[in-house]
Amino acid sequence: MARDKLIVIGGDAAGMSAASQAKRRRPEMEIVVYERGPHTSYSACGIPYYVGRVVDAEEKLIIRTPEKFRELDGIDVRVRHEVEKIDASARKVYVRDLKTGRSAWEQYDQLLIATGADPLCPDLPGADAVDICGVSTLESGLEIRRRLDKGDIKKAVVVGGGYIGLEMAEALVMNGLEVSLISRSSQVMVTLDEDMGALVSQALREVGVALYLDEALIEFATTAGKVTGIVTDKRSLPADIVILGLGVRPNTALAAAAGIPLGEKGSIRVNERMETGIAGIWAAGDCAESFHLVSRKPFYEALGTVANRHGRVAGINLGGGYATFPGVVGTAVTKICHLEVARTGLQEKELGKLGIEWVSAVIKSRTRAGYYPGAGEITVKVLAEKGSGRLLGGQIVGMEGSAKRIDVLATALQAGFTVEEMINLDLGYAPPFSPVWDPVVIAAREAAKKL
Amino acid sequence: MARDKLIVIGGDAAGMSAASQAKRRRPEMEIVVYERGPHTSYSACGIPYYVGRVVDAEEKLIIRTPEKFRELDGIDVRVRHEVEKIDASARKVYVRDLKTGRSAWEQYDQLLIATGADPLCPDLPGADAVDICGVSTLESGLEIRRRLDKGDIKKAVVVGGGYIGLEMAEALVMNGLEVSLISRSSQVMVTLDEDMGALVSQALREVGVALYLDEALIEFATTAGKVTGIVTDKRSLPADIVILGLGVRPNTALAAAAGIPLGEKGSIRVNERMETGIAGIWAAGDCAESFHLVSRKPFYEALGTVANRHGRVAGINLGGGYATFPGVVGTAVTKICHLEVARTGLQEKELGKLGIEWVSAVIKSRTRAGYYPGAGEITVKVLAEKGSGRLLGGQIVGMEGSAKRIDVLATALQAGFTVEEMINLDLGYAPPFSPVWDPVVIAAREAAKKL
Repeated sequence: MARDKLIVIGGDAAGMSAASQAKRRRPEMEIVVYERGPHTSYSACGIPYYVGRVVDAEEKLIIRTPEKFRELDGIDVRVRHEVEKIDASARKVYVRDLKTGRSAWEQYDQLLIATGADPLCPDLPGADAVDICGVSTLESGLEIRRRLDKGDIKKAVVVGGGYIGLEMAEALVMNGLEVSLISRSSQVMVTLDEDMGALVSQALREVGVALYLDEALIEFATTAGKVTGIVTDKRSLPADIVILGLGVRPNTALAAAAGIPLGEKGSIRVNERMETGIAGIWAAGDCAESFHLVSRKPFYEALGTVANRHGRVAGINLGGGYATFPGVVGTAVTKICHLEVARTGLQEKELGKLGIEWVSAVIKSRTRAGYYPGAGEITVKVLAEKGSGRLLGGQIVGMEGSAKRIDVLATALQAGFTVEEMINLDLGYAPPFSPVWDPVVIAAREAAKKL
Repeated sequence: MARDKLIVIGGDAAGMSAASQAKRRRPEMEIVVYERGPHTSYSACGIPYYVGRVVDAEEKLIIRTPEKFRELDGIDVRVRHEVEKIDASARKVYVRDLKTGRSAWEQYDQLLIATGADPLCPDLPGADAVDICGVSTLESGLEIRRRLDKGDIKKAVVVGGGYIGLEMAEALVMNGLEVSLISRSSQVMVTLDEDMGALVSQALREVGVALYLDEALIEFATTAGKVTGIVTDKRSLPADIVILGLGVRPNTALAAAAGIPLGEKGSIRVNERMETGIAGIWAAGDCAESFHLVSRKPFYEALGTVANRHGRVAGINLGGGYATFPGVVGTAVTKICHLEVARTGLQEKELGKLGIEWVSAVIKSRTRAGYYPGAGEITVKVLAEKGSGRLLGGQIVGMEGSAKRIDVLATALQAGFTVEEMINLDLGYAPPFSPVWDPVVIAAREAAKKL
């Protein structure tokens, strides 16, 4: 039997999970990973905490180095190598060594595209100035902290109110900066319904972030090629540094040029086994499409946890096994200062678009028994289908101990539970951990009353 | 329509939940609750924390007083009233007013028995001595703390290694006492498998509790009617106070005498609507039987969270609605010093008895991303049916943030998920809350490899 060769494009979560899985199952397989940057397998989600100095050393964010992958797993990882072309019919890729500048065609039997996503950068005047920073790769995070370390940065503007925008706003506050956040939306965290998003806005204001909502960025002010501020449709704000948190776009130009069919938001369309529309070419991670188990429609979501699960499934299949990725329910959690935020499933505006009728309940409870020290407030919102009572989604904002409660809702969504069924979930109770009725169950119970 | 009269025997979680539910649905209903003790609706689970001075004031443990129930809900609660007889055919109960000593027959249309459970007390020499304390009612907890407040108690012996025994051992350590714990079993917390129980034993020893396992209590040493120590089959231990944590027995003598059929461990057999074998007589809480959703067999479990759910279902039905209680999966959580402990589903010895073949995996991971400050160790064990992969149970022992992860396993058990299905659960991930692969999913993944 010929020794199959697998080429992986991209050496972060999805690519390296897949490579490790495949190698474990078929040790005879030759696996080469090409990674454009200098690092493999790092925690992109950890960057705001490194910038905020919650995590002290950059090495801690690196889960495994290229050398370790070679040594422990027998995977040939080549950093600073960029794949520039895919010739799907000839099963080869054109690779440039970014250090030497040399390039060559490399043959593969199977190809996995795990090129991730790039932060969106607005096409506005001044956008290429110095100290306008996207947050995506480990280098981009290291660069921001190096800039902060110089000590000459006093004012920051964050553009965008998503997870990265908010986490970076907090990180900059923790660096002692004066921080403003602007967003075109009328709320931060648009993946929450407006009522729940308002709780997050309030928390941000309380830690001193100046919020400018419903404002559109018009241009970056610059002096001698360095950013000095931003201009919105309502005001000008001075800034020594501007952080872009405008979301990401799947990095799929390479795949598109090779004729690989794209799907939701330009991500690579894959089947349940993570194979693309072209046989022998697979995709996983932030560049690949998922399926939403509640809406039953294709869905794009760039999250480390999804990337890892994509990579695992692709790797098992590439290694000769059989695995499928059923899809996601849209779970995400984050922490903004002392506030924990979580969401799963569909939110009101998605339900409206899908034409699904729903009821909702918002309840306030405590994270522990009311009399137990450290019991903090928690607000839970649950959405259920009108009539049937099928759980559709949930959102949580609260103090320590709140966010991971979303996992019960995520699991219930995956099980297709109704809110009535959720009332009898046998969840853990003891005074240090919960009121007798867990807050997520209280919310389900209230939603059930409105069906 | 005649104004129905509901009599409830027992004014704690199950009884008062049911009374409130029924009253809300049928405000015209006359509801009288007879409670033997002086309190209604208190948190029995909070007693160890009151004794350990984590909770400072006893009032905090009282969720609602009899006066509040009368005033807010229109429920006639009579404390210090004991029901001594049930005449099921004549639909009446014989009630004694414990203050006046007077008794009388009272008529009912519907009767709810919510008499709870009593702590087991060994029938051994010296068992009736002063300072041998069971922990069940609020008074028993208050009495222990009053004794400790006197300051003359230096040495304590806890008999029994279940939840109450362990929580009380910790509470006594926090009072500065020298604490020994004896158990007839070879491990503490027999609801955990031996390997997981060993982690709890180790933690107890680390906080200074002297553990004597595999030892049978033979008698209590007493002087002038006061306890001075205990004698096991292996040693004598001095003690100024002895705490009994030997579990509970459903308080069903009254029901049995009335000819109401009993079930598992002497608890009152009920149908899904919480009605007993005699029409018009219902039961709920620690005196009533449950159904185990994994073993599909009757099951007895005395837990506040189950009592509340029992009470809710009984109350809806008594109020003219229709509700069923599907059953439990055996979830329980507790905290022993810094260690969080949780379990759900069936454990190895139960599986052995049921003749179910299983695989198991035990994994160690972290409660947060490894690089995030405060990431603590967590050990997760998952049990799955050999072949099918159906999840059968799980156990967790770990640092802060561990215990409530059991809720994912509990929900997955209720959904009938396989461990393979659990791998693709879309759980929340962010560095402050979890590694990319949640520990419970890692355990499920490892179990899946062994099928």
